[in-house]
Amino acid sequence: MKRLLNNMYRPVNPSPAALITSVDEKGKPNIITLGEVFNVSIKQPVIMGIAIRPATYSHYLIKKTGEYVINLTTSSLVEKVDLCGSVSGRNGIDKFAEFGLTPEASSFVKPPIIKECPVNIECRVAGIQTVGDHDLILGEVMAVHAEDDMIDEQGGLNLGRPGLLVYVTGNYWALGEKLGSHGFARRK
Amino acid sequence: MKRLLNNMYRPVNPSPAALITSVDEKGKPNIITLGEVFNVSIKQPVIMGIAIRPATYSHYLIKKTGEYVINLTTSSLVEKVDLCGSVSGRNGIDKFAEFGLTPEASSFVKPPIIKECPVNIECRVAGIQTVGDHDLILGEVMAVHAEDDMIDEQGGLNLGRPGLLVYVTGNYWALGEKLGSHGFARRK
Repeated sequence: MKRLLNNMYRPVNPSPAALITSVDEKGKPNIITLGEVFNVSIKQPVIMGIAIRPATYSHYLIKKTGEYVINLTTSSLVEKVDLCGSVSGRNGIDKFAEFGLTPEASSFVKPPIIKECPVNIECRVAGIQTVGDHDLILGEVMAVHAEDDMIDEQGGLNLGRPGLLVYVTGNYWALGEKLGSHGFARRK
Repeated sequence: MKRLLNNMYRPVNPSPAALITSVDEKGKPNIITLGEVFNVSIKQPVIMGIAIRPATYSHYLIKKTGEYVINLTTSSLVEKVDLCGSVSGRNGIDKFAEFGLTPEASSFVKPPIIKECPVNIECRVAGIQTVGDHDLILGEVMAVHAEDDMIDEQGGLNLGRPGLLVYVTGNYWALGEKLGSHGFARRK
């Protein structure tokens, strides 16, 4: 039996629980946890979107510098992911040091990639627009780093092992089992 | 050990494997499977985004009528989800009848909700923009239907049981276990 929600807060699920890195003018990095991270243009060019509250320090940094990195996370990182999303970087906290994460140099942008995250997506801002209570930031992908065992023979991403962290209406979940690949039902 | 991808196709994961319903001018419904479905404005107003290829029949219908429904799916629907994403509705196929799904009336928009999907999000188009190889469609949420046991005491969404279907770079996955709720690490 279905009912209509009184409170329609954030109805689309699941999403990534991603860590977004940015830097200030002196190069000091910050991290924010975002669930609103998504593919928009898939192939040519590759453009990602994030939706972020204008009040956040990361919003200020990304708007100022025009660069950010989307770092995908795994279940084993769930505590660090939650902590990065619980405090603002505005007061000078070093979230890398505080929460045990390791910054590594990116290839094309100033914000670092996070070593512990298996996939790191370097982005340059292509546009910022206000959409309701969030700003929608579109970013062109400059490079994607991935762990060796997440790369297929053609050099593409193959997240074919479990481990990715999933965000579902305020909760963190682990991925369970693989059920099939695109087209499997038609091929049967 | 990490490497740079040669092929950066669709790097952000996971996403929903959602069924989007739309209608033609005579009210005949169509269904398309999309992974690019996401929250943008979370609370006030509630605005969702979908990214869809301009060549699809559903793109034509949504642009024409200005309405669509996002239907979230479960693992038990994985074959139907895959089939809905494997053929175009342009040639007149009735995907509801063909793949065993049941249309039910929406509250505010013409496209039907899908009975078998536990969450149905009625949307009116707020804007369409071309972003690379996809069109980004923003839609204001008019109503959200959910199964009784997915609604919390305040009338909000609580997807606190497993079952949601997850899309990860070309593969369908089941959710595994719940690891914690937002803020758990800080509260410890």
